[in-house]
Amino acid sequence: MREELILRSLWFEDNSLMIIDQTLLPGEFRIVKLSSCDEVAHAIKTLMVRGAPAIGVAAAYGFYLGIKDCSEGNIDERLDESYELLRSTRPTAVNLFWALERVRGVAITARPAGVDATKVAILNEAHRMAEEDVATNRKIGEYGSTLIKDGFNILTHCNAGALATVDYGTALGVIRAAHEKGKRVHVYADETRPLLQGARLTAWELKRDGIPVTLIADNMAGFLMKQGRIDMVVVGADRIAQNGDTANKIGTYSVAVLAARNNVPFYIAAPLSTVDMSLNNGSEIPIEERSHEEVTTVKGQRIAPEGVDVYNPAFDITEAELIKGIITEKGIAYPPYKESLQKFFND
Amino acid sequence: MREELILRSLWFEDNSLMIIDQTLLPGEFRIVKLSSCDEVAHAIKTLMVRGAPAIGVAAAYGFYLGIKDCSEGNIDERLDESYELLRSTRPTAVNLFWALERVRGVAITARPAGVDATKVAILNEAHRMAEEDVATNRKIGEYGSTLIKDGFNILTHCNAGALATVDYGTALGVIRAAHEKGKRVHVYADETRPLLQGARLTAWELKRDGIPVTLIADNMAGFLMKQGRIDMVVVGADRIAQNGDTANKIGTYSVAVLAARNNVPFYIAAPLSTVDMSLNNGSEIPIEERSHEEVTTVKGQRIAPEGVDVYNPAFDITEAELIKGIITEKGIAYPPYKESLQKFFND
Repeated sequence: MREELILRSLWFEDNSLMIIDQTLLPGEFRIVKLSSCDEVAHAIKTLMVRGAPAIGVAAAYGFYLGIKDCSEGNIDERLDESYELLRSTRPTAVNLFWALERVRGVAITARPAGVDATKVAILNEAHRMAEEDVATNRKIGEYGSTLIKDGFNILTHCNAGALATVDYGTALGVIRAAHEKGKRVHVYADETRPLLQGARLTAWELKRDGIPVTLIADNMAGFLMKQGRIDMVVVGADRIAQNGDTANKIGTYSVAVLAARNNVPFYIAAPLSTVDMSLNNGSEIPIEERSHEEVTTVKGQRIAPEGVDVYNPAFDITEAELIKGIITEKGIAYPPYKESLQKFFND
Repeated sequence: MREELILRSLWFEDNSLMIIDQTLLPGEFRIVKLSSCDEVAHAIKTLMVRGAPAIGVAAAYGFYLGIKDCSEGNIDERLDESYELLRSTRPTAVNLFWALERVRGVAITARPAGVDATKVAILNEAHRMAEEDVATNRKIGEYGSTLIKDGFNILTHCNAGALATVDYGTALGVIRAAHEKGKRVHVYADETRPLLQGARLTAWELKRDGIPVTLIADNMAGFLMKQGRIDMVVVGADRIAQNGDTANKIGTYSVAVLAARNNVPFYIAAPLSTVDMSLNNGSEIPIEERSHEEVTTVKGQRIAPEGVDVYNPAFDITEAELIKGIITEKGIAYPPYKESLQKFFND
């Protein structure tokens, strides 16, 4: 991979999963080679690879790395262990579980044909998921770009870009597609505390692609909307319940409430693999809480008094009523979401 | 001053204004001696001293330092220069202009009695304003504490504490008064990007006083409210228009909108010197924009790509309709604010 040419967050090479270490961006562009299931699990937990779709595909490759050296004697045990290890990495993004179920299904089907056939089947499924992800994002971009008018100022939160997927992105894919069609777009990127995915990743990714971007602290989004300077909000998702309630990076709910008050249309862009039709609503989505240090330090520098108590939920829930539409690879779902999303699954 | 005993943000000693350098907290508690008007202006501009009431009193002392060595021959010129220099430091907090007008008025009255009488009059007026500020905050605390029930969880934004005033604080004064009365209170402190006054100052100040505090990133306030975990919001103000529209630290508007959606009462706590009855509404309040580096760096560490565009307004406007009440030293003003605030000025 050449950084100058394309931006792919992960790929398979030399019997390993190669990723861009996203904890180091934008200061350093470092490619890391993950050669075991343990390494992939660690990379997911520590957010070296992050973003719901990217986590799903990384887990699929991690599953393969977990069994690639197995014999007929230990593959069944290792299939279970790899599955459990990867499942335990992060609780909110459903793409992780979706990917693991899918790869496990393929493994079960291939298993009677022997250990080598099982390995090949799993690796091929991971490859297929990676390619599907790119194609899915292109379709999301195609549908979503129809919502964008020439000259739009678009607010986004966190990073739902190429770095959060295999390539192209969901929310940023929508913006990219509009830009590619020659529409003039300008993006306001919420910096997205505590981990600054907006400042570190979205701003970097858009600048790299020549899409005009202005960085703001999260506190500024509401004031921009109130001034009439935002035409549209588009963000990604980590899990969407059947009624359309959406878990996404902490702060998304605030953006959605501010958008509703200021009559700014608020859209989610996500593949159908992010939709969890087994959940009635957002209250059933588990919300990951992460370490205090994410809030009390920035790049290792302490910004708060020693010993202070901290609450650090990584995601929040945006109610369906705040969401104007959910942009998927099958089209844009509109309320009521239970029906519109189900229709896409049936198509 | 002994750090262990009381927390006073500024005081006059050795013919100089002594301040706690708030840019260094909580890592370092350093007292800085300001011996000239230029030094005071610089300290206000660079936020070594900040918070609307503290800025006002610091400016009053700065005015005195500007003329303290004058002779009959140059005092009139220096009065004008000091006034203009201090006026130009920051545009939003009206307490700065209020304090300068008040001290200039005293100077004009004393001027016929000679240069020494003028110096004494100005210094005494600055002392009077400092003492009044503490008394005012105690009264704000007294009135505001009646709104707080035992066991309340209170959200605040930025720092409207002892550090933002001469002592005791406005919003934190309300919380302090309730705590002193034996009510159990727990504070959620928004970290308040970009300059992290919540993480650095509010968390430090409350911990120091033994008031339970939990630090959150600004993105988490809405999610807490949605979960029913916030009983009340109280924040300070930098300027309040006659209709109640309030300029306060960037992000306050977002908190107010989230509070309204979640039926959480939202209060402003501020002295009447923060009310600007000459302005019809918030759209007339000038909003300071500050440097890009405040957003792109944290403690000197770069968090965003080089060359990225930034928008960095330091304040926003919260509409009066989002404010349940304005807690002042004369009592709590309720809508319609033009009438209730005017009544306090007439009393």
